[in-house]
Amino acid sequence: MEKYKVNKINRTLLKVTGLVFSVVLTACTTNPLAPDPLPSWSEGLSKQQIIEFVNSVTKTGGSDYVAPGRRIATFDNDGTLWSEKPKYFQLLFIIDRVKELAADHPEWANTQPFQAILENDMAALKASGMHGVLELAMATHAGMTTEEFEIIVNDWLATARHPGTGKPYNSMVYQPMLELLDYLRANEFKVFIVSGGGLEFMRPWTEAVYGIPPDQVVGSSIETRYEIRDGKPVLVRLPELHFIDDKETKPVAINRFIGQRPILAAGNSDGDFEMLKWTTSGEGKRLGIIVHHTDAGREWAYDRESSEGRLARGLDEADENGWLIVDMARDWQVIYPYELEK
Amino acid sequence: MEKYKVNKINRTLLKVTGLVFSVVLTACTTNPLAPDPLPSWSEGLSKQQIIEFVNSVTKTGGSDYVAPGRRIATFDNDGTLWSEKPKYFQLLFIIDRVKELAADHPEWANTQPFQAILENDMAALKASGMHGVLELAMATHAGMTTEEFEIIVNDWLATARHPGTGKPYNSMVYQPMLELLDYLRANEFKVFIVSGGGLEFMRPWTEAVYGIPPDQVVGSSIETRYEIRDGKPVLVRLPELHFIDDKETKPVAINRFIGQRPILAAGNSDGDFEMLKWTTSGEGKRLGIIVHHTDAGREWAYDRESSEGRLARGLDEADENGWLIVDMARDWQVIYPYELEK
Repeated sequence: MEKYKVNKINRTLLKVTGLVFSVVLTACTTNPLAPDPLPSWSEGLSKQQIIEFVNSVTKTGGSDYVAPGRRIATFDNDGTLWSEKPKYFQLLFIIDRVKELAADHPEWANTQPFQAILENDMAALKASGMHGVLELAMATHAGMTTEEFEIIVNDWLATARHPGTGKPYNSMVYQPMLELLDYLRANEFKVFIVSGGGLEFMRPWTEAVYGIPPDQVVGSSIETRYEIRDGKPVLVRLPELHFIDDKETKPVAINRFIGQRPILAAGNSDGDFEMLKWTTSGEGKRLGIIVHHTDAGREWAYDRESSEGRLARGLDEADENGWLIVDMARDWQVIYPYELEK
Repeated sequence: MEKYKVNKINRTLLKVTGLVFSVVLTACTTNPLAPDPLPSWSEGLSKQQIIEFVNSVTKTGGSDYVAPGRRIATFDNDGTLWSEKPKYFQLLFIIDRVKELAADHPEWANTQPFQAILENDMAALKASGMHGVLELAMATHAGMTTEEFEIIVNDWLATARHPGTGKPYNSMVYQPMLELLDYLRANEFKVFIVSGGGLEFMRPWTEAVYGIPPDQVVGSSIETRYEIRDGKPVLVRLPELHFIDDKETKPVAINRFIGQRPILAAGNSDGDFEMLKWTTSGEGKRLGIIVHHTDAGREWAYDRESSEGRLARGLDEADENGWLIVDMARDWQVIYPYELEK
């Protein structure tokens, strides 16, 4: 509760700041002294295109005007809002959980794909394929109540460290995207996550980190069942897949959870292709954004051949769809918020 | 778009009014001259209990204080926000649709349950059971794109009239509940619908009527599929059930769509029992509300024996759960908004 209070105060301050800022911005769109809404973005076409889009859909009386309640923006998470290397962070969570739970599961020592994890045999893990990953996901994500799982995720985030940076995983979010989220909210956009990641793996921390409340997080999920335990209702997480939110099911999930077509969508992989297509095919002005990982020095550089965040079709068809490709190395002056603390 | 603009302006005005009102209220909780937030509610224990609940969870520094981002309220729709007699309005929509589509389906003249509708044989319709209703739902709710279905629903609402009152269906909403929704929003609650009704049957009109935007509507749904038609993406509604949002699946849907346990829930039937139980079993102050249909003169009177909105367990166990039973005849001075226009 305490965390929520502080968080809420921060968000309220941010809202007020945003509102003031929004008013100032509206008054000064051509004023070079106006505060920069995207200070970590390099001056250039990417930043310019984003600001022009926001100005045009928020200009009252303009031909591109969109009413606030229709200003829906959807963001992928892995590789779009936070990093996804050397592996998707949720897979690293699974690996840590398997190691932690292994003492209670002596049979895992010689059962794949568990054995692969316990022996750090990444080739064997990869060979287990999608089926193997699902089996691991069920063994680590199901069998407890929703409230117990939330505690597990929070504990992991508080203690686990990224193998490359040594930082907590949820500090490896992109500063320029945090600024973009704030900028959109200051302009009365309602911002959602639409991710292939697990709903209940994201929700415990997205509000504190991104300012995105639980009901504005859409993702993959397993089944849950309502039960009475010790006279009190609980929701038990079951080892059954409910929904995978990826590729052509992203528009399906957007329709089911949000019920409106976004006017802005951002992703970084071909898993986001249909979400971007769905978004930018709507009537009126729209913006599709692809974050291109081009910075091997400060983050990672990958696209067509990567097993995380594979991006090929998105690159090939961005032009004909009018999508903005953000070149991380060129467009972002800062990658992670902690760089600003130096 | 025009509708949305006007609606948005109304909502903004309401928000501003609400904010001002909220400030006034906070300053004047004991001032008998403060504006009445629930003018259509009779003075009495029900109204008092609602106001006391809202005051206590919004009182900064109070022991029952709940931060705004955690002030989640969920409302059933049929029988809680609008009427559900002589049949659920969505079933009346289905009946109208079958009659309208019959010319293209000569085979329906001697195929149940379609024949029952075309011959106004309500006994045969009832005999077709849940299976029959599902078949009718699929024949009338699937086979078109999501955008086409939205137009169908809007057209029906614009032209269809309730057999008893002669009024448009979405004018038969409860004025006291509209006031409650506004009162909660003025106190920074985030208000959701959690209904057994169809997601896409409700979303076209809930924002204009209740001020509840599409992403805050949770309901039953069928499957949809992403397709490219004439070079543009569409979502096609398929004749396959995805989710029925009723009884013990209401907490499941709340967890999946909202991701937080509500602190207030309102329903009117045993289909809402688990939602109320889930809500009021949480820690801290909670409020569970059951609307009891007791007014045969102005609305309808029914509970234990009704096929719509059957309410038995809710009545039997309300006391031990501390739920508020709103007696429509006693507690509501006005039922429908149009009564105020007289």
